[in-house]
Amino acid sequence: MKIGILVVGDELTRGMVQDANASYLAPILQEEGWEVSFIAASGDGGEDIATALRFLLSHSRAVIVTGGLGPTADDRTTESLARAFGRGCFRDEEALRRIRERFDLLGIPWTENNAKQADFPEGAVPVPNLGGTAWGYVLEDEGKTVAVLPGVPSEVRRMFPEGVLPLLRERLSGGGKGPLKRTLKLFGISESRIDEVLAGVDFASLGISLGFYPRFPENHLVLTSRNSDRAAERNLEEAVERVRRSLGQYIFARDEETLEGVVASLLWERKRTLAVAESCTGGLVADRLTDVPGSSAYFERGLVVYSNASKEEMLHVPAAVLEAHGAVSEETARAMAEGVSALAGTDLGLSTTGIAGPGGGTDLKPVGTVFVAVAGERGTVCRKFRFRWNRRRIKEISAHWALEMLRRYLEGE
Amino acid sequence: MKIGILVVGDELTRGMVQDANASYLAPILQEEGWEVSFIAASGDGGEDIATALRFLLSHSRAVIVTGGLGPTADDRTTESLARAFGRGCFRDEEALRRIRERFDLLGIPWTENNAKQADFPEGAVPVPNLGGTAWGYVLEDEGKTVAVLPGVPSEVRRMFPEGVLPLLRERLSGGGKGPLKRTLKLFGISESRIDEVLAGVDFASLGISLGFYPRFPENHLVLTSRNSDRAAERNLEEAVERVRRSLGQYIFARDEETLEGVVASLLWERKRTLAVAESCTGGLVADRLTDVPGSSAYFERGLVVYSNASKEEMLHVPAAVLEAHGAVSEETARAMAEGVSALAGTDLGLSTTGIAGPGGGTDLKPVGTVFVAVAGERGTVCRKFRFRWNRRRIKEISAHWALEMLRRYLEGE
Repeated sequence: MKIGILVVGDELTRGMVQDANASYLAPILQEEGWEVSFIAASGDGGEDIATALRFLLSHSRAVIVTGGLGPTADDRTTESLARAFGRGCFRDEEALRRIRERFDLLGIPWTENNAKQADFPEGAVPVPNLGGTAWGYVLEDEGKTVAVLPGVPSEVRRMFPEGVLPLLRERLSGGGKGPLKRTLKLFGISESRIDEVLAGVDFASLGISLGFYPRFPENHLVLTSRNSDRAAERNLEEAVERVRRSLGQYIFARDEETLEGVVASLLWERKRTLAVAESCTGGLVADRLTDVPGSSAYFERGLVVYSNASKEEMLHVPAAVLEAHGAVSEETARAMAEGVSALAGTDLGLSTTGIAGPGGGTDLKPVGTVFVAVAGERGTVCRKFRFRWNRRRIKEISAHWALEMLRRYLEGE
Repeated sequence: MKIGILVVGDELTRGMVQDANASYLAPILQEEGWEVSFIAASGDGGEDIATALRFLLSHSRAVIVTGGLGPTADDRTTESLARAFGRGCFRDEEALRRIRERFDLLGIPWTENNAKQADFPEGAVPVPNLGGTAWGYVLEDEGKTVAVLPGVPSEVRRMFPEGVLPLLRERLSGGGKGPLKRTLKLFGISESRIDEVLAGVDFASLGISLGFYPRFPENHLVLTSRNSDRAAERNLEEAVERVRRSLGQYIFARDEETLEGVVASLLWERKRTLAVAESCTGGLVADRLTDVPGSSAYFERGLVVYSNASKEEMLHVPAAVLEAHGAVSEETARAMAEGVSALAGTDLGLSTTGIAGPGGGTDLKPVGTVFVAVAGERGTVCRKFRFRWNRRRIKEISAHWALEMLRRYLEGE
């Protein structure tokens, strides 16, 4: 079953913004067992929208369109679609009432051009927009299905799973709850190694298919079962168990969880407090930890100790250690983690020190050399890394390893 | 003059990665004075590539294709194009020699399938790849031009401006150096306000067109002159001057410069050192400052003072101030900036404190209330903000304002 995606907007063909809707929709369609025929982006012109739509329809059973549903003269998706299908438009009074209500609720003065957002091609089933005023709709024509959504990514993310996907399943897959899926997030193992390991695991006999999504520096594995009955649920759990048996140590999260979120939950559950001392990651570890709402409950403070003076004065890293081993060394990393935990009076201390480059590397300590240490009640652990990326990516993967080492420490690994 | 863009790869139609090539190419084509007809993404199948290419060619004078040029059986762009144009392929010996040289240079064993990367449709002009092994090419057919590049974004960014754009200019615009352009980066003013202000400014008589690219939280303004002679250069400078006269205070950078890069240059030139104390931005200000290579020369340390204890102990923010005014207050922000500068012995101190949400807001200090302070030889300045975004965006715009206030302080504004 092939589905096309059409994203509409001059801002896309002019390169003003990067598409965020096709890249959101494509993996979902893939996991439903449908295939994306083509993705197309067209400008706001009515003729362009119709041209791209005709192309996609001629190669697809269904097309999902986003964008061009707003109140202004630039928004021509509905009029263009109605003309392409030779239909008139109707005004949906229920939609109009609810769009007006939203204006009242937000205290925004109503202007008449907004009524356009309650106009739909004849025969269309309106899809409510709970996060905005441009409603979507689903339309059938000569055995093809067209689903239309506004262009605002947050509205698509709400309306598609709630209002469109169930209708598409009904029309394209005979209804049902849709596939069961589980995302496993892995870190610290390469794409090709995961491939190799899983090549020897039998998923087919469980009716489970595997999708693979690299998201630097993580690798996401999506297990999907086409059915959704009790047997399928058991098979999915069995498939997850099989992945866990061969790759368990690399799995840090499931589904919507993030690494910083998992670390936050562990700190919260175990009632542990944390302080961080960063050199090469320059504040990125603290930044990620404080992205979690409520992080002040366990994150006491963070220090970005770029100068040697700051390492000595605040963390009491001995000058002798800095002199003998250098700021980028296991000894310094350990002293930083222990020092920041002592300074802040926290249960745990986490530290990073390394050479992010492009300058500053030597033969013995080339660019990309990084040490991460965790200090706590079970003693201090430290690990040395050698990364081969640019400055920003070295910061990112170092921060990720810092959080991952903390997670493993908290898990008692 | 209309140009289509085709990005090829199963990883795109399956949603495994987000397109980075069409979004790079579209604004460049726009600034050249060409219009992007449609952007299409197709999978790796030979039939799919040909179908999408035919669609784009029927609506465009030229098409730029990226992807599907590698050595494996999955890479079918060239064979698919040759068939679509009814041509055979030839092996370019010069290309083959240079691709083999690259393998030798990198010490990678040569395998025969790599020779495929020196095969081109008959009549094609090869485009060397200095950053990889898949060469590109430009092909003419029945008055249409097709330019083909590999899918790796970093290779596209190198090969397109050097190897493809000059050829396209020759064929589509009669040669020349291409348009002159200048990007002005603005912050602290809304899109609609910029629009309003510039509506009254005459650019047309200078032969200058304006492009507008919002990049949260910045707004980028691109001024373009179609000509590239001395008169055009003068007109471009005059247009920049006209923008500066009405919006100068909001312009923080030009062209490839970043805000942290501009701040870094100012600190470097003025031989000033900096320490940062962050609360609500949680390390993001330090993270951005340390993204600049060589930042250890002026960035002495950063503190993420999440707890009140850390503000008192390390920064000597008086307990009385915290009690009377709260951690989120002008008084605390000032004490933090002055305290961190005193602690670190730096010329300047920069601080942020606020409520990033979603919890923690009150009637008097709702979520999004943020104070930023800069302390230095000209005294301490502090500013209060009220942002209406989610937690991550509040962190991002607060960090941006912190860097911007530092920039203005250094500029003596």
